[in-house]
Amino acid sequence: MGGDFGPCVTVPASLQALASNPDLHLLLVGDPSALTPLLAKVDFSLLSRLDIVPAESVIAGDARPSQAIRASRGTSMRIALELIRDGRAQACVSAGNTGVLMGLATLLIKPVDGIDRPALVTLLPHQQHGKSVVLDLGANVACSSTMLVQFAVMGAVMAEEVLGLAHPRVALLNIGEEETKGLASIRDAAAQLKAMPSIHYIGYLEGNELLTGKTDVMVCDGFVGNVTLKTLEGVVRMFLSLLKGPSGKGVGQQTRSWWLRFLGRWVQKRLAKRFGHLNPDHYNGACLLGLRGTVIKSHGAANQNAFAMAIEQAVQAVQRQLPERIASRLKAVLPKSD
Amino acid sequence: MGGDFGPCVTVPASLQALASNPDLHLLLVGDPSALTPLLAKVDFSLLSRLDIVPAESVIAGDARPSQAIRASRGTSMRIALELIRDGRAQACVSAGNTGVLMGLATLLIKPVDGIDRPALVTLLPHQQHGKSVVLDLGANVACSSTMLVQFAVMGAVMAEEVLGLAHPRVALLNIGEEETKGLASIRDAAAQLKAMPSIHYIGYLEGNELLTGKTDVMVCDGFVGNVTLKTLEGVVRMFLSLLKGPSGKGVGQQTRSWWLRFLGRWVQKRLAKRFGHLNPDHYNGACLLGLRGTVIKSHGAANQNAFAMAIEQAVQAVQRQLPERIASRLKAVLPKSD
Repeated sequence: MGGDFGPCVTVPASLQALASNPDLHLLLVGDPSALTPLLAKVDFSLLSRLDIVPAESVIAGDARPSQAIRASRGTSMRIALELIRDGRAQACVSAGNTGVLMGLATLLIKPVDGIDRPALVTLLPHQQHGKSVVLDLGANVACSSTMLVQFAVMGAVMAEEVLGLAHPRVALLNIGEEETKGLASIRDAAAQLKAMPSIHYIGYLEGNELLTGKTDVMVCDGFVGNVTLKTLEGVVRMFLSLLKGPSGKGVGQQTRSWWLRFLGRWVQKRLAKRFGHLNPDHYNGACLLGLRGTVIKSHGAANQNAFAMAIEQAVQAVQRQLPERIASRLKAVLPKSD
Repeated sequence: MGGDFGPCVTVPASLQALASNPDLHLLLVGDPSALTPLLAKVDFSLLSRLDIVPAESVIAGDARPSQAIRASRGTSMRIALELIRDGRAQACVSAGNTGVLMGLATLLIKPVDGIDRPALVTLLPHQQHGKSVVLDLGANVACSSTMLVQFAVMGAVMAEEVLGLAHPRVALLNIGEEETKGLASIRDAAAQLKAMPSIHYIGYLEGNELLTGKTDVMVCDGFVGNVTLKTLEGVVRMFLSLLKGPSGKGVGQQTRSWWLRFLGRWVQKRLAKRFGHLNPDHYNGACLLGLRGTVIKSHGAANQNAFAMAIEQAVQAVQRQLPERIASRLKAVLPKSD
């Protein structure tokens, strides 16, 4: 039910995901009267792997987390998370209110041992043709040094498990590369990470290093991480739209002659190929890492393809047994708490 | 003496600025033995508008502001700022340590009435073919709501004076557009701005709106603003390098035939024209707004063209009498302090 467009996007995206994953089974949690009409004329082979779980109400996109969580009984988001808690689903995908999703998931699904607060994580493609793990992207508005250290450990484990890296490099996002720079929480986290032999900590990196591939894991304060990712998306979208030209026209298409139009399309195709992997729609879906189950947060503004990508992320996280592997690795890596 | 490259960049950039501004007179503050060799063989017409002001020492790029400020006597940065204080210079341009520059400038040049802390501000080009005023870009690592409100007022005045806008729109950078989102300092600043009739406050905007032109003034926490601007620069640089192709080759230049090479260059020129205004080198130089004099901070990694652009910013700020106009406008706009 969530996101800027609600079922108009999430239902077609669900059908798209069902079509491309023959083993996938989906439970659509929400208002049946809003969901059912969107399933008319859908092929039986898809419908047989899809169920509607009715929910009376929906959590508003602008709801205050504390209030919304108290009044969450019967909402689609809470029921979806209860399905995981009760073992009836293996993952939950939502485009709804991030703060409420974070709070409800922590309450119902619980963080794994050693983690106080889960973090939103995504894999960003970088210039060296690999990917970086970036977290926290806004699950936590203010992050203590302890939280940043836990994010670093989770990020490193994710880089090992998902990217297959043996000794992933871990950096903290800061406003300078010198040790004396930045917020106290970040400086304190740096001191702790340096003292951890299991973490390959490489120091501070600035925002301009986000896509250069200098690190495998970029750890950031949730507020900063969220603004940074949104900025990144904004610029990439602007570039992709500029490539199409000022009024949706491609390079060379302002002119009349057929060969220039032909040329324009050829160049645009080449460029789209070169930049396509940076399109935000292609990496939609941030995982709420550190929980005992898989919860994926989709961008609220996601279109059908982007929301289908978020479902795909959930499928992969479940297939990789990400929560279980992270929990077991954390036991070995995290310092024993007193 | 500052920046990643020191006089190797700043001296040629100074000569470039002198050549393009016939009325400009520059004082190079630093170690004469490092500066003089770079002035050999320079045309007399330029040298006659350039003086060296000797300084014994230099503030290190990684120095802690509090310590460095106490021990700043005789450093090039302090002497340059003292030249403004003593009326011997109208502006100071530095690529050195941001924190120390901010601290020393506040100490020596003083903020204008009604402003507690100056802010780093820049003009960012946006998609609507205009520019936005963005501040703070990292002069202040943690910003209170009072500071954010003062930034908003300074930003609005700058948009009026520099961009010539009658009622500039002012927004706060946050992690959601809903009123309940984000840091307490930002929510508190929003409440204050809403109550100020002289400010056209339009609400929160997210990072992806930085270049869309939805606002004329974007106010942000210094830490977040710095990371955001650096992220922006990183992405734009990556795009510009991708346009050149994987190994410095342009579109079509991988192929042998002359007409494809020719075509490639033509397309690249068109694209460079379309994206050129976003090149970070073209808007290098952030103004330390809110002081009784003009202080411009250049990116530490600035090349010659970029540093020359920072000098150009100083020239324009002086010609526009920016500090004086902002001081006089602030008197009218700012709420009287108790």
